[in-house]
Amino acid sequence: MSKVLVFGHKNPDTDTITSALVYAYLKNQLGVEAEAVRLGEPNDETKFALEKFGFEAPRLVEKVATEANEVILVDHNEFQQSADDIADVTITEVIDHHRIANFETAAPLYYRAEPVGCTATILNKIFKENGIEVPANIAGLMVSAIVSDTLLLKSPTCTEQDVKAAKELAEIAGVNLDEYGLAMLKAGADLSDKALEDLLSLDAKEFDMNGKKIVIAQVNAVDVNDVLSRQDELTNLLNKEVAEKGLDLFFFVVTDILNNDSVAVPAGSVIEESAKAFNATVENGQIKLPGVVSRKKQIVPVLTEQFA
Amino acid sequence: MSKVLVFGHKNPDTDTITSALVYAYLKNQLGVEAEAVRLGEPNDETKFALEKFGFEAPRLVEKVATEANEVILVDHNEFQQSADDIADVTITEVIDHHRIANFETAAPLYYRAEPVGCTATILNKIFKENGIEVPANIAGLMVSAIVSDTLLLKSPTCTEQDVKAAKELAEIAGVNLDEYGLAMLKAGADLSDKALEDLLSLDAKEFDMNGKKIVIAQVNAVDVNDVLSRQDELTNLLNKEVAEKGLDLFFFVVTDILNNDSVAVPAGSVIEESAKAFNATVENGQIKLPGVVSRKKQIVPVLTEQFA
Repeated sequence: MSKVLVFGHKNPDTDTITSALVYAYLKNQLGVEAEAVRLGEPNDETKFALEKFGFEAPRLVEKVATEANEVILVDHNEFQQSADDIADVTITEVIDHHRIANFETAAPLYYRAEPVGCTATILNKIFKENGIEVPANIAGLMVSAIVSDTLLLKSPTCTEQDVKAAKELAEIAGVNLDEYGLAMLKAGADLSDKALEDLLSLDAKEFDMNGKKIVIAQVNAVDVNDVLSRQDELTNLLNKEVAEKGLDLFFFVVTDILNNDSVAVPAGSVIEESAKAFNATVENGQIKLPGVVSRKKQIVPVLTEQFA
Repeated sequence: MSKVLVFGHKNPDTDTITSALVYAYLKNQLGVEAEAVRLGEPNDETKFALEKFGFEAPRLVEKVATEANEVILVDHNEFQQSADDIADVTITEVIDHHRIANFETAAPLYYRAEPVGCTATILNKIFKENGIEVPANIAGLMVSAIVSDTLLLKSPTCTEQDVKAAKELAEIAGVNLDEYGLAMLKAGADLSDKALEDLLSLDAKEFDMNGKKIVIAQVNAVDVNDVLSRQDELTNLLNKEVAEKGLDLFFFVVTDILNNDSVAVPAGSVIEESAKAFNATVENGQIKLPGVVSRKKQIVPVLTEQFA
């Protein structure tokens, strides 16, 4: 039980999976027995990155208290996004880049959060602070995480620190940042063979906006028509979700990763208001969102203000 | 309103007051308009340190939202220990060495907590990471904070990092660590002219231990007889507090900073049990606690276990 488990959030993305592997490696180098694990299935983009740099996905775990007394969280801190039994173990460290909420410890810990675009950017600093070299394959995982979280450095969440780290790590990994980054994003954004049911839940988050129950889901696409050509079926599914969950709005966003635009397909009773929030109108059941790529920075605050 | 306020906890101690001054200085060096403020009166020990290194106490504030949109917390994070209107401002940074609880933000922030004995030890690292030199007078404040929080490196909360930082900073400040440290501790530990009423609340914390309402207060003394010679009056005051606040136990601890021992004067209905927790007995209304100096590490866990 002396081993410490390192893991990211449920519904894992590339930053969460790779940061667990990368930080477990760093702890091992520092003489700590640490193992990366995961709380869910890696998506296609993450699988592409792992394969490219010769890694297996970390082991899947359901509960953590049966395996370890101490754990390290990467890329998250809110307990509802973590292991179900997170309250039963001691959290010794957190490395994260999100807001802090629903988080509490009984004892002092190492907590390192910075307002940057990606956990890997912080990990890159921690390697330097400890004088540990980043090997090529680990650098590959880290650059993959930055590309994923910042949509190849184009998201408004991306900071100068992320840009600098991505360039540095791409060189160590021996990949061309733009070419590799685009290939990786495309691997996760081929939606042509995906069932719409799966897309609805792939990356959906629920929000309470002044009493309104609103779900905002986002998928990345190389070709938005892979989804929009099935709009009738999509709208039916969305309406079903709205009815079953008592939602005021299901805001389904398809983001074009090549042109950095998005299209929303809304369902629910406040469709027109949601379009108005973006100074737009609903046309053919769609709302065009030019230049919008970040749910955190460009969608949530706009809808929050609209329904305030 | 572009200025950021930097402050520590209510009932300020030396680490909290000096860390606000030190971190505001560092932010200024980095081009950020920052001002250190305080949420309460500095104690005698802190006044001694400020005077020694040529500083005025930071400005006292009651509320912060009227003065700034953004604040930085040092040496604390729990909202009940912070400014009353802390929920109305944006916390952009936290530098701390305590557990995390009752803390929440709406947006990502810079949060730096490490399980070391003193905030100043972490600040010393941040100076280095930013390539900023620590001036002699700032180093003096920082070494004062480490001496205070670790009782001159003797508390079980003290880590190797604290020892290393204290030695390094004493040299920069141009003081002899042991001589200056003892002089500073003594300045805050002369209790001969203090009213007992004031000592009761100087550093008292309330705990819920398995339904029992327990207050543990601690004062540092050069001569424990400055307090114990007034034991009858003290016991009367403690019994009054127990009755008024419905306490099960008021555990009043006088710590001998020269010999690193403590004596407890308990009041309430579970006096004998509290002594048993330390394998001791109550004699003449006192419990001898040889080698005990840290409430956090040596008193709270022992009583918690006893009443579990």
